[in-house]
Amino acid sequence: MNRDRKGPWPNEASPWRKSEPVRKPLVQRGEEARLYGLNACLAAFARRPEALRKVYLTEARIPALKSVLAWCVKHRLGYRVVEEADLDKLTASKHHEGVCFDLVRAPPLRLDDLLAGLPAAPAPSLLMWLDGVGNPHNLGALLRSAAHFGAGGVVVPADQGLDVSGAAARVAEGAAEVVPFAQARSAADALAALRRQGYAVAATVPREGTSLYATALPARLVLVFGAEGEGMSAQMIAAADLRLTIPGSGAIESLNVAASVAVVLGEYWRQRHAADGV
Amino acid sequence: MNRDRKGPWPNEASPWRKSEPVRKPLVQRGEEARLYGLNACLAAFARRPEALRKVYLTEARIPALKSVLAWCVKHRLGYRVVEEADLDKLTASKHHEGVCFDLVRAPPLRLDDLLAGLPAAPAPSLLMWLDGVGNPHNLGALLRSAAHFGAGGVVVPADQGLDVSGAAARVAEGAAEVVPFAQARSAADALAALRRQGYAVAATVPREGTSLYATALPARLVLVFGAEGEGMSAQMIAAADLRLTIPGSGAIESLNVAASVAVVLGEYWRQRHAADGV
Repeated sequence: MNRDRKGPWPNEASPWRKSEPVRKPLVQRGEEARLYGLNACLAAFARRPEALRKVYLTEARIPALKSVLAWCVKHRLGYRVVEEADLDKLTASKHHEGVCFDLVRAPPLRLDDLLAGLPAAPAPSLLMWLDGVGNPHNLGALLRSAAHFGAGGVVVPADQGLDVSGAAARVAEGAAEVVPFAQARSAADALAALRRQGYAVAATVPREGTSLYATALPARLVLVFGAEGEGMSAQMIAAADLRLTIPGSGAIESLNVAASVAVVLGEYWRQRHAADGV
Repeated sequence: MNRDRKGPWPNEASPWRKSEPVRKPLVQRGEEARLYGLNACLAAFARRPEALRKVYLTEARIPALKSVLAWCVKHRLGYRVVEEADLDKLTASKHHEGVCFDLVRAPPLRLDDLLAGLPAAPAPSLLMWLDGVGNPHNLGALLRSAAHFGAGGVVVPADQGLDVSGAAARVAEGAAEVVPFAQARSAADALAALRRQGYAVAATVPREGTSLYATALPARLVLVFGAEGEGMSAQMIAAADLRLTIPGSGAIESLNVAASVAVVLGEYWRQRHAADGV
């Protein structure tokens, strides 16, 4: 992956991805996001009810969304009972599970604010860094794994325009509301800030890294995952303290990125908790 | 999951899923399947060139598919150079990567034939059993993990109508052609046949199982994964020798099924290879 990428290490004068193809932002860049899926919607409502703007639901979902509808009435927000087919159109999906919300989008945190909310060194702390992961199914599944294994947050370079779209949030089933999302203005600055806080940086690469299962993972760790297809930038691989490879049969080129995330986060969990027997 | 499901253990007189909701088969049930994605198509061609019926590709893909086109010419198969937009329509997807094949579908194996091709006891052997996994993205990602970690095959009860659709095969990026797929006519018979071959059966459940990381996994193992949402049937959970749970923070209800597969297969790999340091 990316063996052909060239370009200087980014600095303020030469921005991070200047020489690379522009990636399309996922979905809405506006103020509001459309979220769907029952668990995703309920999780969002539990965390940020004040973000709710509109609710569309099928009649069958009224009991499950009683508290949401009560909130709508109290705060004079619009809600509409609609047909399945209407939700198909509103969400451009068949996987809405009978509900969709329009929400004011949660603003991404600044990295400093994310770090301020996490345990200080030398306490264990796990972060993820996404270098170009664009597929909403992968992003959603990956956020769910991050939430499951207790990752403290996800860091994304600001210039990638990556955002949690409706589809990703649905696949994440509420995890998008659990795992804080931070944008890093400059990758080089962000790495420096993370290292000052005692984090090691591990790049997950499809080959030529040390075996995940033969590596003692640092307790304070930023796990970097690259884009589907292209993988991560050569600069990021070079900048990492560790390069990890998930060993396997060699029958296929690489794991799906969301599967890689699950495997690596699981192994971090195992190593942290091995002594507890959990 | 499924705590409310009732029904007798299946036997010949009362078929496996009699009392359960009918699941929609994924896609085409006919003779031919439409496969897309460059790696998926190339892998299919490498394994079963005789299955090829039609090829659609963009002009940009001609160099990558040179050997396929030569085969088409030699065997008088149709191929058409088309626009991206045509492929969008043919595949009902934006993720075709400039190529789509119509292929004669690989017939699923019978369980006996699958087992005949795998190492005999007591050699290590890993199989997966899918109890209702229907989402093509999950199925595809899961097949890719199965191929990566060297699973010997995937077993699916025949009455579920589960099949590897175009979308699943694309997400699997060729893994659908690497991992044999077997249909079991009767779940009870299949479990008995697997046990006669020395396999233990482990159900992966979101809670109340023993911790994956605190369990010595048997070398001959059938890992059972349940449907998204509903999970697996209560009968299957009860029938398993082991019930495994992937421990976590508890912040979300469960991992995505494809992520669960990746984590459990990775841990099986780790335990098998721990002594080798890989």
